[in-house]
Amino acid sequence: MTDFTQIRYAVADGIATITLDRPAKLNAFTGTMMAELIAAFDLSDADDAVRAVVVTGEGRAFCAGADLSEGAKTFDYDNRPDNPRGASPVREDGSIDYSHDAVRDGGGRVTLRIFESLKPVIGAINGPAVGIGATMQLAMDIRIASEDAKFGFVFARRGIVPEAASSWFLPRIVGIAQALEWCFSGRVFGADEAFAGGLVGHVVPADALLDTAYAMAREIADNTAPVSVALTRQMMWRMLGAASPMDAHRIDSRAIYSRGRSGDAREGVVSFLEKRPAVFPETVSEGMPDFYPWWDAAKYS
Amino acid sequence: MTDFTQIRYAVADGIATITLDRPAKLNAFTGTMMAELIAAFDLSDADDAVRAVVVTGEGRAFCAGADLSEGAKTFDYDNRPDNPRGASPVREDGSIDYSHDAVRDGGGRVTLRIFESLKPVIGAINGPAVGIGATMQLAMDIRIASEDAKFGFVFARRGIVPEAASSWFLPRIVGIAQALEWCFSGRVFGADEAFAGGLVGHVVPADALLDTAYAMAREIADNTAPVSVALTRQMMWRMLGAASPMDAHRIDSRAIYSRGRSGDAREGVVSFLEKRPAVFPETVSEGMPDFYPWWDAAKYS
Amino acid sequence: MTDFTQIRYAVADGIATITLDRPAKLNAFTGTMMAELIAAFDLSDADDAVRAVVVTGEGRAFCAGADLSEGAKTFDYDNRPDNPRGASPVREDGSIDYSHDAVRDGGGRVTLRIFESLKPVIGAINGPAVGIGATMQLAMDIRIASEDAKFGFVFARRGIVPEAASSWFLPRIVGIAQALEWCFSGRVFGADEAFAGGLVGHVVPADALLDTAYAMAREIADNTAPVSVALTRQMMWRMLGAASPMDAHRIDSRAIYSRGRSGDAREGVVSFLEKRPAVFPETVSEGMPDFYPWWDAAKYS
Repeated sequence: MTDFTQIRYAVADGIATITLDRPAKLNAFTGTMMAELIAAFDLSDADDAVRAVVVTGEGRAFCAGADLSEGAKTFDYDNRPDNPRGASPVREDGSIDYSHDAVRDGGGRVTLRIFESLKPVIGAINGPAVGIGATMQLAMDIRIASEDAKFGFVFARRGIVPEAASSWFLPRIVGIAQALEWCFSGRVFGADEAFAGGLVGHVVPADALLDTAYAMAREIADNTAPVSVALTRQMMWRMLGAASPMDAHRIDSRAIYSRGRSGDAREGVVSFLEKRPAVFPETVSEGMPDFYPWWDAAKYS
Repeated sequence: MTDFTQIRYAVADGIATITLDRPAKLNAFTGTMMAELIAAFDLSDADDAVRAVVVTGEGRAFCAGADLSEGAKTFDYDNRPDNPRGASPVREDGSIDYSHDAVRDGGGRVTLRIFESLKPVIGAINGPAVGIGATMQLAMDIRIASEDAKFGFVFARRGIVPEAASSWFLPRIVGIAQALEWCFSGRVFGADEAFAGGLVGHVVPADALLDTAYAMAREIADNTAPVSVALTRQMMWRMLGAASPMDAHRIDSRAIYSRGRSGDAREGVVSFLEKRPAVFPETVSEGMPDFYPWWDAAKYS
Repeated sequence: MTDFTQIRYAVADGIATITLDRPAKLNAFTGTMMAELIAAFDLSDADDAVRAVVVTGEGRAFCAGADLSEGAKTFDYDNRPDNPRGASPVREDGSIDYSHDAVRDGGGRVTLRIFESLKPVIGAINGPAVGIGATMQLAMDIRIASEDAKFGFVFARRGIVPEAASSWFLPRIVGIAQALEWCFSGRVFGADEAFAGGLVGHVVPADALLDTAYAMAREIADNTAPVSVALTRQMMWRMLGAASPMDAHRIDSRAIYSRGRSGDAREGVVSFLEKRPAVFPETVSEGMPDFYPWWDAAKYS
């Protein structure tokens, strides 16, 4: 159905599953995988039949991190034979033009795309998740770990730094002290520590992982209004960076006012009073309110 | 003492109790209740005899959410026969004037008023707290739940969105992942899950609920300086949205300098050295420092 | 090696230890201690041999708070016989010039200096930590408590307010509800409550305290690149106040791009592939990238 080569994308019963699919390489991350992940979230957002997205890995790993097959040049993009970023941002005098598009971190392109998602995103972490394999999860809404999962923010052991906007996401999810403790040591840790530290919300046996993720997606798909969920997702994530509750009040007032007049709100109340399942009429592709998006598109410069 | 009709307001021993008081309707929220809650916090702020506020519900519920007696028109304010918001913000061409005062969410008016409180606010959650019954608590400082309490961020099941500025408050209290998980599913959950997720700080048997809340209020009233507590409350909440610790340093330097010269500071140190209870001379009505408030009054536009 | 009088500063095996050293006064905080702490972090940042900093207290306390030997004038800086702040910010008409340098809170000068540290800072809290003894820890990255530790945000009991920028730090570390509960009551609590509330990440027997702190410092020193750690520390703390993940993406893209070309990144990947310990060539004193610092130096005005 799509011509992805390093991931799979499939939709069933209202749920899209994105599977990292380079099992022989422990699903190591590449420029191709980056582009395919972004394209997959474009598909899930555009398809009203998709109510939630589950992301998992094929084989025994979730994602082992950056593909290290370029060895010492792995992170030296300009000088890799397969330079995945094209033209160089290095000026003739050796200085770097940091506004150049080739400077942009690929992991961040993925997490910023997930951040924009209109559908809930559930990470089903089936095995080792290291480097970008750990940080790409942070823009997902809910993380469920198999007992076999492992996590590592190993950047300082590789001579680089946490990426994929994880310096924004990680302290907000696990707290600044836990974030620093994991990133300073760079050590790999198990699912129990990830749960105790707040990185994952649930730990389940390996054979229950996808069932748990799908059950959570199912509950959303069966009971809630798609436009409500899309707005809720963007409101919560965006207001996490807002200075004041007045910022939220400005937007949720608009949302309550405009959604309150909608067919979804009528159906939501009437179905509740009639004690029957709701059948919400509106779709994300047609029904997002006129004030959405309420933020200026983020600029990279 | 006051002519409230849907809440009760009473002061005893330095503690104000606000009781949601529509038990036959499970204390369902209305425009009248909104106005009365705001007025009650005006009273508690203005009364130097009040050192803390406890909010609870009469009967078996805390607050079952919006009053649904208008059925399908519940959230369609313009078209409700009892239109609680007056003039319509809908223009002749059908577009909405989002700067119109009638757009403003009533739940947000309440939480923003609680946010401004000069006295600590303790929620004593005695039973089901759903919709605005759940979100109105978020601007309170401390939440204590009875074992009978239930919580539900049910908005997406009603075709609307989380309101009352909860997109700002909730992720800051319980973390973004837990906030999204509860708001996406819209399901109702018990006190134990609320405690595990960080929504409430304490769970106690039903018959110990008010005693626990009053004991906490008592400890504040008996031991601390009113102006110190009022400043502390505003400093903590306001700095939760500040960009840098330097923002806090600017304000707490002013506060330490001006409070350090006060009779309260003299009494605080001397009573400690003399190992006797402090009797703080200053009041909130007279003693707030000249730099308070240090923020621009929030604008709605 | 240094002429400190109220602290000790010692470096061994890549770890600097700063010891609050007024045991007869329970390490009570003074203007001298403030200046010495700031100077000690200048030393640790400037010394490439230092990979991490451990802060602890001599004797049975960590820090009992402000030195109260001036009694009622303790916080009335202008009128103390030993006025530690020099010229008065009080104008002839009795108003306060809040932009005057003498207004600046001494605790905040310390925490803002720790905030700037290029080396990880581990608090080893050996005993009572009250007032500034509690708040000075908040800019440290990791807090380990002895079972004998006690904590108290006692400001409201002394007629003053939480200082040292703690209104920014504390709610981000322990959540707004826990922060307010501790600051409103001003009571002193033990290591177990501090751990349950998220104030400390670890509680250990008293005789294991320093070993635990040094083991954590050791893991960083033995495995990670100094420049990576310094950048990671500043990225995480700074992005804790940033509005959007795009802010992080702008900076981590620069960091990944420039560090990816470094000798550290080459060594990090190659040593990993060769399954041997890394020997990172670059130092903080020479190797910080040209875009550091990426923030405007904070202004006090």
